[in-house]
Amino acid sequence: MLFHGYFRSSAAWRCRIAFGLKGLSPDFVPVHLRRDGGEQTKPAYRTINPQGLVPSLTVDGQVLTQSLAILEWLDETHPQPRLLPDDPFARAEVRAFALTIAADIHPVNNLRILTYLKGPLAQPQEAVDTWVRHWCQDGLAACEALAVRSARRGRFTFGEAPGLADICLIPQLGGARRFGLDTTQFPRLTEIEAACNALPAFTEARPDRQPDAEA
Amino acid sequence: MLFHGYFRSSAAWRCRIAFGLKGLSPDFVPVHLRRDGGEQTKPAYRTINPQGLVPSLTVDGQVLTQSLAILEWLDETHPQPRLLPDDPFARAEVRAFALTIAADIHPVNNLRILTYLKGPLAQPQEAVDTWVRHWCQDGLAACEALAVRSARRGRFTFGEAPGLADICLIPQLGGARRFGLDTTQFPRLTEIEAACNALPAFTEARPDRQPDAEA
Repeated sequence: MLFHGYFRSSAAWRCRIAFGLKGLSPDFVPVHLRRDGGEQTKPAYRTINPQGLVPSLTVDGQVLTQSLAILEWLDETHPQPRLLPDDPFARAEVRAFALTIAADIHPVNNLRILTYLKGPLAQPQEAVDTWVRHWCQDGLAACEALAVRSARRGRFTFGEAPGLADICLIPQLGGARRFGLDTTQFPRLTEIEAACNALPAFTEARPDRQPDAEA
Repeated sequence: MLFHGYFRSSAAWRCRIAFGLKGLSPDFVPVHLRRDGGEQTKPAYRTINPQGLVPSLTVDGQVLTQSLAILEWLDETHPQPRLLPDDPFARAEVRAFALTIAADIHPVNNLRILTYLKGPLAQPQEAVDTWVRHWCQDGLAACEALAVRSARRGRFTFGEAPGLADICLIPQLGGARRFGLDTTQFPRLTEIEAACNALPAFTEARPDRQPDAEA
Protein backbone atom coordinates (compact mmCIF):
# COMPACT_ATOMS: atom_id res chain seq x y z
CA MET A 1 0.00 0.00 0.00
CA LEU A 2 1.23 3.46 -0.95
CA PHE A 3 -0.39 6.47 0.67
CA HIS A 4 -0.18 9.96 -0.83
CA GLY A 5 -1.03 12.62 1.75
CA TYR A 6 -0.08 15.86 3.44
CA PHE A 7 0.41 16.35 7.16
CA ARG A 8 -2.21 19.09 7.52
CA SER A 9 -4.91 17.65 5.22
CA SER A 10 -8.01 16.69 7.23
CA ALA A 11 -8.86 14.01 4.70
CA ALA A 12 -5.39 12.42 4.93
CA TRP A 13 -5.56 12.68 8.74
CA ARG A 14 -8.80 10.64 8.72
CA CYS A 15 -7.06 7.87 6.79
CA ARG A 16 -4.06 7.92 9.14
CA ILE A 17 -6.36 7.34 12.14
CA ALA A 18 -7.98 4.40 10.35
CA PHE A 19 -4.59 2.90 9.42
CA GLY A 20 -3.65 3.11 13.10
CA LEU A 21 -6.88 1.51 14.30
CA LYS A 22 -6.49 -1.30 11.75
CA GLY A 23 -2.80 -1.82 12.51
CA LEU A 24 -1.71 -0.90 8.97
CA SER A 25 1.43 1.04 7.99
CA PRO A 26 1.29 1.94 4.29
CA ASP A 27 4.34 3.55 2.70
CA PHE A 28 3.92 7.31 2.69
CA VAL A 29 4.59 9.79 -0.11
CA PRO A 30 4.18 13.43 0.95
CA VAL A 31 2.41 15.72 -1.53
CA HIS A 32 3.18 19.32 -0.57
CA LEU A 33 -0.03 21.29 -1.03
CA ARG A 34 1.60 24.73 -0.85
CA ARG A 35 5.02 24.36 -2.47
CA ASP A 36 5.34 25.74 -5.99
CA GLY A 37 1.59 26.26 -6.45
CA GLY A 38 0.79 22.85 -4.98
CA GLU A 39 2.36 19.53 -5.98
CA GLN A 40 -1.17 18.08 -6.05
CA THR A 41 -2.03 20.22 -9.09
CA LYS A 42 0.92 19.01 -11.20
CA PRO A 43 0.57 16.44 -14.01
CA ALA A 44 2.68 13.87 -12.11
CA TYR A 45 0.17 13.71 -9.28
CA ARG A 46 -2.92 14.13 -11.47
CA THR A 47 -1.91 10.92 -13.22
CA ILE A 48 -2.57 9.26 -9.87
CA ASN A 49 -5.57 11.35 -8.83
CA PRO A 50 -7.19 13.37 -11.64
CA GLN A 51 -8.94 15.51 -9.04
CA GLY A 52 -5.62 16.89 -7.83
CA LEU A 53 -6.48 16.37 -4.17
CA VAL A 54 -4.99 14.26 -1.40
CA PRO A 55 -5.25 11.57 -0.19
CA SER A 56 -4.79 8.68 -2.60
CA LEU A 57 -4.12 5.07 -1.71
CA THR A 58 -2.51 2.77 -4.27
CA VAL A 59 -3.08 -0.94 -3.70
CA ASP A 60 -2.07 -3.69 -6.14
CA GLY A 61 -1.82 -1.14 -8.94
CA GLN A 62 -5.30 0.28 -8.32
CA VAL A 63 -5.67 3.85 -7.12
CA LEU A 64 -8.29 4.68 -4.50
CA THR A 65 -9.24 8.32 -3.99
CA GLN A 66 -11.64 10.26 -1.72
CA SER A 67 -11.06 9.64 1.97
CA LEU A 68 -14.55 8.26 2.70
CA ALA A 69 -14.26 5.77 -0.17
CA ILE A 70 -10.82 4.75 1.12
CA LEU A 71 -12.20 4.32 4.66
CA GLU A 72 -15.14 2.18 3.45
CA TRP A 73 -12.72 0.08 1.39
CA LEU A 74 -10.44 -0.36 4.42
CA ASP A 75 -13.40 -1.50 6.50
CA GLU A 76 -14.54 -3.97 3.85
CA THR A 77 -11.10 -5.47 3.28
CA HIS A 78 -9.59 -5.22 6.80
CA PRO A 79 -12.70 -5.70 8.93
CA GLN A 80 -11.13 -5.73 12.43
CA PRO A 81 -11.77 -3.52 14.29
CA ARG A 82 -14.94 -2.36 12.55
CA LEU A 83 -15.36 1.30 11.62
CA LEU A 84 -19.05 0.85 10.76
CA PRO A 85 -21.70 -1.10 12.70
CA ASP A 86 -23.76 -3.93 11.15
CA ASP A 87 -27.30 -2.58 11.43
CA PRO A 88 -28.34 -0.55 8.34
CA PHE A 89 -29.97 2.24 10.40
CA ALA A 90 -26.88 2.49 12.59
CA ARG A 91 -24.64 2.56 9.50
CA ALA A 92 -26.75 5.35 8.00
CA GLU A 93 -26.45 7.36 11.21
CA VAL A 94 -22.67 7.00 11.28
CA ARG A 95 -22.35 7.86 7.59
CA ALA A 96 -24.62 10.91 7.90
CA PHE A 97 -22.48 12.26 10.74
CA ALA A 98 -19.29 11.59 8.75
CA LEU A 99 -20.74 13.29 5.66
CA THR A 100 -21.88 16.32 7.64
CA ILE A 101 -18.16 16.88 8.17
CA ALA A 102 -16.61 15.36 5.05
CA ALA A 103 -19.11 16.80 2.56
CA ASP A 104 -20.53 19.94 4.21
CA ILE A 105 -17.77 21.42 6.40
CA HIS A 106 -14.40 20.35 5.05
CA PRO A 107 -14.81 20.91 1.27
CA VAL A 108 -16.08 24.47 1.67
CA ASN A 109 -13.04 25.29 3.83
CA ASN A 110 -10.48 23.45 1.75
CA LEU A 111 -7.25 25.15 0.66
CA ARG A 112 -8.44 25.58 -2.94
CA ILE A 113 -11.60 27.37 -1.77
CA LEU A 114 -9.64 29.73 0.50
CA THR A 115 -7.21 30.38 -2.36
CA TYR A 116 -10.14 31.35 -4.60
CA LEU A 117 -11.59 33.64 -1.91
CA LYS A 118 -8.24 35.40 -1.54
CA GLY A 119 -7.40 35.45 -5.25
CA PRO A 120 -10.31 35.96 -7.70
CA LEU A 121 -12.65 37.33 -5.00
CA ALA A 122 -9.91 39.52 -3.40
CA GLN A 123 -11.05 38.83 0.16
CA PRO A 124 -8.76 39.86 3.03
CA GLN A 125 -7.43 37.17 5.39
CA GLU A 126 -9.89 38.28 8.08
CA ALA A 127 -12.89 37.59 5.83
CA VAL A 128 -11.41 34.21 4.88
CA ASP A 129 -10.94 33.26 8.55
CA THR A 130 -14.53 34.36 9.30
CA TRP A 131 -15.74 32.19 6.38
CA VAL A 132 -13.97 29.13 7.79
CA ARG A 133 -15.26 29.71 11.32
CA HIS A 134 -18.81 30.25 10.01
CA TRP A 135 -19.01 26.87 8.28
CA CYS A 136 -17.23 25.08 11.12
CA GLN A 137 -19.65 26.65 13.61
CA ASP A 138 -22.69 25.74 11.53
CA GLY A 139 -21.60 22.17 10.79
CA LEU A 140 -20.20 21.30 14.22
CA ALA A 141 -23.41 22.59 15.87
CA ALA A 142 -25.30 20.09 13.69
CA CYS A 143 -22.82 17.36 14.66
CA GLU A 144 -23.31 18.17 18.35
CA ALA A 145 -27.10 17.86 17.90
CA LEU A 146 -26.78 14.59 15.95
CA ALA A 147 -24.43 13.15 18.59
CA VAL A 148 -26.56 14.25 21.55
CA ARG A 149 -29.83 12.87 20.20
CA SER A 150 -28.47 9.49 19.18
CA ALA A 151 -29.80 6.41 20.94
CA ARG A 152 -26.45 4.81 20.09
CA ARG A 153 -24.24 7.35 21.88
CA GLY A 154 -21.52 5.94 24.09
CA ARG A 155 -17.96 6.68 25.05
CA PHE A 156 -17.44 7.49 21.35
CA THR A 157 -19.89 9.23 18.98
CA PHE A 158 -21.91 6.09 18.29
CA GLY A 159 -20.94 3.39 20.74
CA GLU A 160 -18.14 2.11 22.93
CA ALA A 161 -15.51 1.78 20.22
CA PRO A 162 -14.15 4.42 17.81
CA GLY A 163 -15.46 4.41 14.25
CA LEU A 164 -15.98 6.40 11.08
CA ALA A 165 -17.77 9.27 12.85
CA ASP A 166 -14.91 9.78 15.31
CA ILE A 167 -12.36 9.49 12.52
CA CYS A 168 -14.00 12.44 10.73
CA LEU A 169 -14.70 14.46 13.88
CA ILE A 170 -11.21 14.71 15.39
CA PRO A 171 -9.44 16.31 12.38
CA GLN A 172 -12.36 18.70 11.92
CA LEU A 173 -12.19 19.90 15.53
CA GLY A 174 -8.46 20.44 15.02
CA GLY A 175 -9.10 22.40 11.84
CA ALA A 176 -11.77 24.56 13.50
CA ARG A 177 -9.42 25.49 16.35
CA ARG A 178 -6.66 26.36 13.90
CA PHE A 179 -8.96 29.12 12.61
CA GLY A 180 -9.84 30.33 16.10
CA LEU A 181 -13.19 28.65 16.76
CA ASP A 182 -13.93 27.93 20.42
CA THR A 183 -14.83 24.24 20.38
CA THR A 184 -15.71 24.10 24.10
CA GLN A 185 -19.19 25.28 23.03
CA PHE A 186 -19.73 21.67 21.87
CA PRO A 187 -19.56 19.69 25.13
CA ARG A 188 -20.52 16.34 23.65
CA LEU A 189 -18.00 16.63 20.81
CA THR A 190 -15.16 17.62 23.13
CA GLU A 191 -16.08 14.72 25.43
CA ILE A 192 -15.77 12.36 22.45
CA GLU A 193 -12.48 14.02 21.50
CA ALA A 194 -11.08 13.33 24.97
CA ALA A 195 -11.99 9.65 24.60
CA CYS A 196 -10.27 9.53 21.19
CA ASN A 197 -7.17 11.30 22.48
CA ALA A 198 -6.62 8.43 24.91
CA LEU A 199 -5.91 6.14 21.95
CA PRO A 200 -2.53 5.99 20.17
CA ALA A 201 -4.22 5.62 16.74
CA PHE A 202 -5.60 9.13 17.21
CA THR A 203 -2.60 10.82 18.80
CA GLU A 204 -0.10 9.33 16.35
CA ALA A 205 -2.17 10.52 13.38
CA ARG A 206 -1.87 14.20 14.37
CA PRO A 207 -0.34 16.53 11.79
CA ASP A 208 2.64 17.47 13.99
CA ARG A 209 3.66 13.82 14.27
CA GLN A 210 4.01 13.30 10.52
CA PRO A 211 7.33 13.07 8.64
CA ASP A 212 6.36 16.03 6.40
CA ALA A 213 5.21 18.24 9.31
CA GLU A 214 6.19 21.90 9.31
CA ALA A 215 5.89 24.48 12.08
CA MET B 1 -41.35 6.16 4.29
CA LEU B 2 -41.56 9.93 4.38
CA PHE B 3 -39.24 11.96 2.16
CA HIS B 4 -38.49 15.63 2.81
CA GLY B 5 -37.05 17.30 -0.27
CA TYR B 6 -37.15 20.18 -2.70
CA PHE B 7 -37.61 19.93 -6.45
CA ARG B 8 -34.36 21.73 -7.34
CA SER B 9 -32.08 20.19 -4.70
CA SER B 10 -29.42 18.00 -6.33
CA ALA B 11 -29.22 15.85 -3.22
CA ALA B 12 -32.99 15.22 -3.19
CA TRP B 13 -32.85 14.55 -6.94
CA ARG B 14 -30.29 11.78 -6.36
CA CYS B 15 -32.63 10.08 -3.90
CA ARG B 16 -35.58 10.36 -6.29
CA ILE B 17 -33.61 8.53 -9.00
CA ALA B 18 -32.78 5.76 -6.52
CA PHE B 19 -36.41 5.47 -5.39
CA GLY B 20 -37.37 5.08 -9.04
CA LEU B 21 -34.73 2.44 -9.75
CA LYS B 22 -35.76 0.51 -6.63
CA GLY B 23 -39.49 0.82 -7.36
CA LEU B 24 -40.19 2.78 -4.15
CA SER B 25 -42.66 5.65 -3.75
CA PRO B 26 -42.18 7.33 -0.35
CA ASP B 27 -44.65 9.99 0.72
CA PHE B 28 -43.25 13.42 -0.14
CA VAL B 29 -43.16 16.57 2.01
CA PRO B 30 -41.82 19.62 0.17
CA VAL B 31 -39.44 21.86 2.09
CA HIS B 32 -39.25 25.22 0.31
CA LEU B 33 -35.62 26.33 0.39
CA ARG B 34 -36.28 29.94 -0.64
CA ARG B 35 -39.63 30.87 0.91
CA ASP B 36 -39.48 33.05 4.02
CA GLY B 37 -35.70 32.67 4.48
CA GLY B 38 -35.91 28.93 3.85
CA GLU B 39 -38.22 26.45 5.55
CA GLN B 40 -35.20 24.17 6.06
CA THR B 41 -33.71 26.66 8.54
CA LYS B 42 -36.81 26.80 10.78
CA PRO B 43 -37.07 24.93 14.11
CA ALA B 44 -39.87 22.67 12.78
CA TYR B 45 -37.57 21.19 10.16
CA ARG B 46 -34.40 21.28 12.28
CA THR B 47 -36.17 18.92 14.70
CA ILE B 48 -36.08 16.43 11.84
CA ASN B 49 -32.66 17.35 10.45
CA PRO B 50 -30.47 19.46 12.77
CA GLN B 51 -28.30 20.40 9.81
CA GLY B 52 -31.17 22.31 8.19
CA LEU B 53 -30.61 20.73 4.79
CA VAL B 54 -32.67 18.51 2.51
CA PRO B 55 -33.18 15.64 1.98
CA SER B 56 -34.32 13.62 4.99
CA LEU B 57 -35.94 10.21 4.91
CA THR B 58 -38.02 9.07 7.88
CA VAL B 59 -38.47 5.31 8.22
CA ASP B 60 -40.09 3.57 11.19
CA GLY B 61 -39.58 6.67 13.32
CA GLN B 62 -35.86 6.94 12.49
CA VAL B 63 -34.60 9.91 10.51
CA LEU B 64 -31.93 9.39 7.86
CA THR B 65 -30.06 12.42 6.54
CA GLN B 66 -27.32 13.08 3.97
CA SER B 67 -28.15 11.80 0.51
CA LEU B 68 -25.18 9.42 0.22
CA ALA B 69 -26.02 7.82 3.58
CA ILE B 70 -29.65 7.47 2.46
CA LEU B 71 -28.54 5.89 -0.84
CA GLU B 72 -26.24 3.40 0.91
CA TRP B 73 -29.07 2.53 3.33
CA LEU B 74 -31.46 2.04 0.41
CA ASP B 75 -29.00 -0.30 -1.27
CA GLU B 76 -28.46 -2.31 1.93
CA THR B 77 -32.17 -2.67 2.70
CA HIS B 78 -33.65 -2.86 -0.83
CA PRO B 79 -30.85 -4.62 -2.68
CA GLN B 80 -32.48 -5.02 -6.11
CA PRO B 81 -31.34 -3.55 -8.42
CA ARG B 82 -27.92 -2.91 -6.90
CA LEU B 83 -26.52 0.62 -6.82
CA LEU B 84 -23.05 -0.58 -5.76
CA PRO B 85 -21.06 -3.56 -7.11
CA ASP B 86 -19.79 -6.38 -4.89
CA ASP B 87 -16.04 -6.12 -5.36
CA PRO B 88 -14.38 -3.79 -2.79
CA PHE B 89 -12.14 -2.08 -5.38
CA ALA B 90 -15.12 -1.53 -7.65
CA ARG B 91 -17.18 -0.16 -4.74
CA ALA B 92 -14.35 2.24 -3.87
CA GLU B 93 -14.20 3.45 -7.45
CA VAL B 94 -17.95 4.10 -7.57
CA ARG B 95 -17.93 5.86 -4.19
CA ALA B 96 -14.92 8.03 -5.14
CA PHE B 97 -16.71 9.21 -8.27
CA ALA B 98 -19.90 9.88 -6.28
CA LEU B 99 -17.96 11.79 -3.62
CA THR B 100 -16.13 13.87 -6.22
CA ILE B 101 -19.57 15.27 -6.98
CA ALA B 102 -21.39 14.99 -3.65
CA ALA B 103 -18.51 16.24 -1.48
CA ASP B 104 -16.37 18.41 -3.76
CA ILE B 105 -18.70 20.02 -6.32
CA HIS B 106 -22.18 20.24 -4.87
CA PRO B 107 -21.52 21.51 -1.31
CA VAL B 108 -19.37 24.43 -2.49
CA ASN B 109 -22.15 25.51 -4.87
CA ASN B 110 -25.05 24.93 -2.50
CA LEU B 111 -27.67 27.63 -1.95
CA ARG B 112 -26.30 28.54 1.49
CA ILE B 113 -22.82 29.13 0.04
CA LEU B 114 -24.14 31.32 -2.77
CA THR B 115 -26.23 33.25 -0.22
CA TYR B 116 -23.07 33.90 1.82
CA LEU B 117 -21.16 35.03 -1.26
CA LYS B 118 -23.93 37.48 -2.14
CA GLY B 119 -24.62 38.61 1.44
CA PRO B 120 -21.61 38.88 3.77
CA LEU B 121 -19.07 38.91 0.91
CA ALA B 122 -21.17 41.31 -1.23
CA GLN B 123 -20.37 39.54 -4.50
CA PRO B 124 -22.38 40.45 -7.61
CA GLN B 125 -24.45 37.72 -9.32
CA GLU B 126 -21.89 37.50 -12.13
CA ALA B 127 -19.11 36.59 -9.68
CA VAL B 128 -21.39 34.03 -8.02
CA ASP B 129 -22.21 32.41 -11.37
CA THR B 130 -18.50 32.32 -12.24
CA TRP B 131 -17.80 30.64 -8.87
CA VAL B 132 -20.36 27.91 -9.59
CA ARG B 133 -19.08 27.30 -13.10
CA HIS B 134 -15.48 27.19 -11.85
CA TRP B 135 -16.13 24.37 -9.36
CA CYS B 136 -18.40 22.50 -11.78
CA GLN B 137 -15.73 22.75 -14.48
CA ASP B 138 -12.98 21.58 -12.14
CA GLY B 139 -14.96 18.71 -10.64
CA LEU B 140 -16.63 17.46 -13.81
CA ALA B 141 -13.27 17.44 -15.61
CA ALA B 142 -12.02 15.10 -12.86
CA CYS B 143 -15.18 12.98 -13.26
CA GLU B 144 -14.59 12.76 -17.02
CA ALA B 145 -11.01 11.57 -16.39
CA LEU B 146 -12.11 9.04 -13.75
CA ALA B 147 -14.85 7.71 -16.05
CA VAL B 148 -12.61 7.48 -19.11
CA ARG B 149 -9.77 5.64 -17.38
CA SER B 150 -11.95 3.07 -15.64
CA ALA B 151 -11.54 -0.57 -16.59
CA ARG B 152 -15.18 -0.98 -15.54
CA ARG B 153 -16.69 1.57 -17.92
CA GLY B 154 -19.74 0.45 -19.82
CA ARG B 155 -23.01 1.88 -21.03
CA PHE B 156 -23.17 3.63 -17.65
CA THR B 157 -20.28 5.15 -15.66
CA PHE B 158 -19.13 1.83 -14.20
CA GLY B 159 -20.90 -1.00 -15.98
CA GLU B 160 -23.97 -1.98 -17.92
CA ALA B 161 -26.52 -0.94 -15.28
CA PRO B 162 -27.05 2.44 -13.59
CA GLY B 163 -25.71 2.91 -10.09
CA LEU B 164 -24.55 5.36 -7.45
CA ALA B 165 -22.13 7.16 -9.77
CA ASP B 166 -24.81 7.83 -12.39
CA ILE B 167 -27.28 8.89 -9.68
CA CYS B 168 -24.86 11.61 -8.57
CA LEU B 169 -23.75 12.60 -12.07
CA ILE B 170 -27.08 13.41 -13.70
CA PRO B 171 -28.27 16.07 -11.20
CA GLN B 172 -24.79 17.64 -11.22
CA LEU B 173 -24.78 17.96 -15.02
CA GLY B 174 -28.22 19.58 -14.75
CA GLY B 175 -26.97 21.99 -12.10
CA ALA B 176 -23.89 22.91 -14.12
CA ARG B 177 -25.98 23.74 -17.18
CA ARG B 178 -28.35 25.86 -15.09
CA PHE B 179 -25.36 28.12 -14.40
CA GLY B 180 -24.30 28.21 -18.04
CA LEU B 181 -21.52 25.60 -18.20
CA ASP B 182 -21.12 23.89 -21.56
CA THR B 183 -21.23 20.20 -20.65
CA THR B 184 -20.54 18.99 -24.19
CA GLN B 185 -16.82 19.43 -23.32
CA PHE B 186 -17.23 16.16 -21.35
CA PRO B 187 -18.02 13.60 -24.07
CA ARG B 188 -17.92 10.54 -21.83
CA LEU B 189 -20.20 12.16 -19.20
CA THR B 190 -22.76 13.29 -21.77
CA GLU B 191 -22.70 9.81 -23.33
CA ILE B 192 -23.54 8.37 -19.90
CA GLU B 193 -26.24 11.02 -19.45
CA ALA B 194 -27.89 9.93 -22.71
CA ALA B 195 -27.98 6.33 -21.47
CA CYS B 196 -29.56 7.46 -18.19
CA ASN B 197 -32.12 9.63 -19.95
CA ALA B 198 -33.48 6.54 -21.67
CA LEU B 199 -34.68 5.26 -18.28
CA PRO B 200 -37.92 6.45 -16.61
CA ALA B 201 -36.28 6.43 -13.14
CA PHE B 202 -34.03 9.24 -14.36
CA THR B 203 -36.54 11.26 -16.39
CA GLU B 204 -39.27 11.11 -13.73
CA ALA B 205 -36.85 12.35 -11.06
CA ARG B 206 -36.21 15.64 -12.88
CA PRO B 207 -36.97 18.84 -10.96
CA ASP B 208 -39.67 20.00 -13.41
CA ARG B 209 -41.61 16.75 -12.90
CA GLN B 210 -41.98 17.23 -9.12
CA PRO B 211 -45.17 18.34 -7.34
CA ASP B 212 -43.40 21.36 -5.80
CA ALA B 213 -41.81 22.45 -9.11
CA GLU B 214 -41.78 26.14 -10.00
CA ALA B 215 -40.90 27.84 -13.26
